[in-house]
Amino acid sequence: MIALDRLSLNTATVKRLKLAEAADLCARHGVGGIGLWRDRVQEVGSERAAAIVADAGLHVSSLCRGGFFTPDASQRAEMLDDNRLAIEEAATVGADVLVLVCGGLQPGSRDLPAARDLIAAAITELAPFAQEAGVRLGIEPMHPMFCADRSAITRLRDALDLARQFPVETVGVVVDSYHVWWDGSVLADIADAGDRVASFQVCDWVVPLPADMLLGRGHIGDGSIDFAPLAAAVEATGYQGMVEVEIFNQDIWDAPGDETITTVKSRFATHLG
Amino acid sequence: MIALDRLSLNTATVKRLKLAEAADLCARHGVGGIGLWRDRVQEVGSERAAAIVADAGLHVSSLCRGGFFTPDASQRAEMLDDNRLAIEEAATVGADVLVLVCGGLQPGSRDLPAARDLIAAAITELAPFAQEAGVRLGIEPMHPMFCADRSAITRLRDALDLARQFPVETVGVVVDSYHVWWDGSVLADIADAGDRVASFQVCDWVVPLPADMLLGRGHIGDGSIDFAPLAAAVEATGYQGMVEVEIFNQDIWDAPGDETITTVKSRFATHLG
Repeated sequence: MIALDRLSLNTATVKRLKLAEAADLCARHGVGGIGLWRDRVQEVGSERAAAIVADAGLHVSSLCRGGFFTPDASQRAEMLDDNRLAIEEAATVGADVLVLVCGGLQPGSRDLPAARDLIAAAITELAPFAQEAGVRLGIEPMHPMFCADRSAITRLRDALDLARQFPVETVGVVVDSYHVWWDGSVLADIADAGDRVASFQVCDWVVPLPADMLLGRGHIGDGSIDFAPLAAAVEATGYQGMVEVEIFNQDIWDAPGDETITTVKSRFATHLG
Repeated sequence: MIALDRLSLNTATVKRLKLAEAADLCARHGVGGIGLWRDRVQEVGSERAAAIVADAGLHVSSLCRGGFFTPDASQRAEMLDDNRLAIEEAATVGADVLVLVCGGLQPGSRDLPAARDLIAAAITELAPFAQEAGVRLGIEPMHPMFCADRSAITRLRDALDLARQFPVETVGVVVDSYHVWWDGSVLADIADAGDRVASFQVCDWVVPLPADMLLGRGHIGDGSIDFAPLAAAVEATGYQGMVEVEIFNQDIWDAPGDETITTVKSRFATHLG
């Protein structure tokens, strides 16, 4: 039972809108939160982005995203610089969390444990910087079908074990229904996560997946995920943050923003409210 | 370090060949084992299938597949009948294991725990029949991207917990590299599985996945999987069975069988031998 005033629209759901358009959309539809992607923030600059969302009366539930901690060694310094920039941007826009997509195997490598070590090492370097900036990092376990190329952190359990190496206010975990719903241990892992839950994102798993498997996400209620137990588990941790609807789906991107946000609100009320 | 005489060719890898053609291919290339699919067995009948593989001097490492334990209630009796038939076929062809693809969500349902209960209930009904027939059932955890529609059993850990409800000689687990490689706990879970390992199947994870995600498998060495640690873990359990190469891939299906099996042997020697 999550009240509608905790709904946040992740701007990836309305990918074609510029930041001011997305903020206006949320404001007109009474959606109080917004999750930002860096491309739309950088388009206007983070100071201006902060002003746009503040003027619209919106709370920034996340900035997406930092991470990709497993490049070639030659690109590691650049990767860390970009993550420090993301942390600064998250501080400027006042995001509750900077979502981390941790990265898959290093180019040319098949060594998953090594990839996981690189991820831990990068977070170790970035955590003090984030702490100083007052930004919380959120490790997002991603669905195992992205293990090779996007995130070697696949289970909430693994994200949690990693997050616990750092102060709770600096590093948490992101619970995204799409990435964790299949895991028989996920409810227990959420309970165990407690105040490490830094973000709760929702969208549905729709079969069959489309040719581009990044885009196989649907409106809540259009797919296979039972949201009530996930939401109840997150609520039971004491999580007080917003619940972000983040959907990557070409048909939804092609739809008018007003239509999309209307559906988002209605489905949220039905399946999570 | 697995000797080439433990290589088995799963007939799905040469999907276009009839059983006699696949058996001849193995015999000509000195591959001593074959994993059978039921369609090709039923095409000639299981008695004749047994004779074909025996005449070719082949060991039958598996029959694929039983399972799909989560149909509509109205089709449950038919499903159990078909599984009993599969067990009889496995006994007739002398397969080391009948591989179980357990089934996803029931049609119209989002209740994963209920699906898992149905799977356990079906195996409970079938296990005595299998035991009497001298057939070992192998629970195959499938990659979580198949959770909704093919297998609610996604992790080796979960397959193992389920198998342990039954006698070890009757129910084991199938370790398929494609389905388990991403799991940070898989090496520990294999070690824990011990003599529950009923089959070891191998193929590679190739990115990007093709439009039909069932076909995103590659020859060993063409993808992201590090086979040596998996093979070492399976060997350390004392597993003495064959190692099956099972690849679903349209390009490989379109290639001549002699070319495919030559590549299979060479890659096996390089990455597992």
